[in-house]
Amino acid sequence: MTQKHSFSEEEKNGVYRAIRERRDIRAQFVDTPVPAPVLRRLLEAAHHAPSVGFMQPWNFVIIQDSVIKDQVHQAFTRAHARSAAMFPDDKRETYTKFKLEGIREAPVNLLVTCDRTRSGPVVIGRTVQPEMDLYSTVCAVQNLWLAARAEGVGVGWVSIIEEQDLREIFSLPEDVCIIAYLCIGYVSHFPDRPELEKAGWLPRLDLDELIFYEQWGKKEQGG
Amino acid sequence: MTQKHSFSEEEKNGVYRAIRERRDIRAQFVDTPVPAPVLRRLLEAAHHAPSVGFMQPWNFVIIQDSVIKDQVHQAFTRAHARSAAMFPDDKRETYTKFKLEGIREAPVNLLVTCDRTRSGPVVIGRTVQPEMDLYSTVCAVQNLWLAARAEGVGVGWVSIIEEQDLREIFSLPEDVCIIAYLCIGYVSHFPDRPELEKAGWLPRLDLDELIFYEQWGKKEQGG
Repeated sequence: MTQKHSFSEEEKNGVYRAIRERRDIRAQFVDTPVPAPVLRRLLEAAHHAPSVGFMQPWNFVIIQDSVIKDQVHQAFTRAHARSAAMFPDDKRETYTKFKLEGIREAPVNLLVTCDRTRSGPVVIGRTVQPEMDLYSTVCAVQNLWLAARAEGVGVGWVSIIEEQDLREIFSLPEDVCIIAYLCIGYVSHFPDRPELEKAGWLPRLDLDELIFYEQWGKKEQGG
Repeated sequence: MTQKHSFSEEEKNGVYRAIRERRDIRAQFVDTPVPAPVLRRLLEAAHHAPSVGFMQPWNFVIIQDSVIKDQVHQAFTRAHARSAAMFPDDKRETYTKFKLEGIREAPVNLLVTCDRTRSGPVVIGRTVQPEMDLYSTVCAVQNLWLAARAEGVGVGWVSIIEEQDLREIFSLPEDVCIIAYLCIGYVSHFPDRPELEKAGWLPRLDLDELIFYEQWGKKEQGG
């Protein structure tokens, strides 16, 4: 049974490579256009995410117009300045040196949203956990991100933008939530490790420290 | 540039197969144990998810004890009964016929949580979108889910359980949020389509209907 439905070694390797070599891209975008069939495959990957009650609550707004990218970039700049002020003095200078978006350099930007009314008010699996449709849409983002890595395409998730700014730029209806603003494009290279890890901001945690057994905080199996 | 960092065809195929053939498993679990190295690879996959500010906010509680599974199943049963009452009369009977969890049949259950205090109060990328750490943890779930599919292992996300019940069963600290309760195990088969689609509950949406250009609602590119 254990081998029955598993993929070939090379297919498995593809999945694990995508997971391990995926990076959050900010500084490495090049201006090579993303061919329409490639972008389509990424959106198909997103569209095949799990969704609570099969509601498929997502929409995708493809942005290639530099005027709109500039508006989004201005919103980023405002939120970034406000954010810098939140860091303690000893961290602020380092924070402001990080490049945290590639909005104007990436050939494609993508707004991923969640329509909370998509399949009516009562949704299987969302009855007692109302956030499940938001989480389904996050799964769509992660599908797209991994497919992009397999295609050699970089993706960066820009989260330093006020929701209200994006709502106004894209004229979003009230029931539609913003999940992600993504920058998408080919890259000069994929960094070998996350940039915040390389910069010494935070270390990769030891997985063993994050695993418990049967109960929160219980480190030993059995017994 | 477009081919430079892309995977081999078979590796790419692995990624797209995982995305397309992943299913939310409820009824197909078999009792073959999941070997420790396989479970470890799934948790490593989750641990390599993107995380806002590299905070890696997740924890994983591995549940194999049938007493705890029974407690969770009882919580599901209560929430399921309350949920059934929310559906309109013409949908309720169909709803109650769906099998929506495999808690006791799956050899492994996994509680995935998000520690909102993980790397201190100010987190890069979470300054103006406070939900980003929750979304990072959802990405970890999706990584695990896709890796599992490649291994031939099924995963089901059970969302019909009240948060408070899970908090009590697992003694969760206040700052730790529940993201997902997963059932994990080998399966008799992976259904060829989502079960709610097969049952005619909802159809797969047409991706073209979900794509806009530059602005919400704009269906034509350019112009």
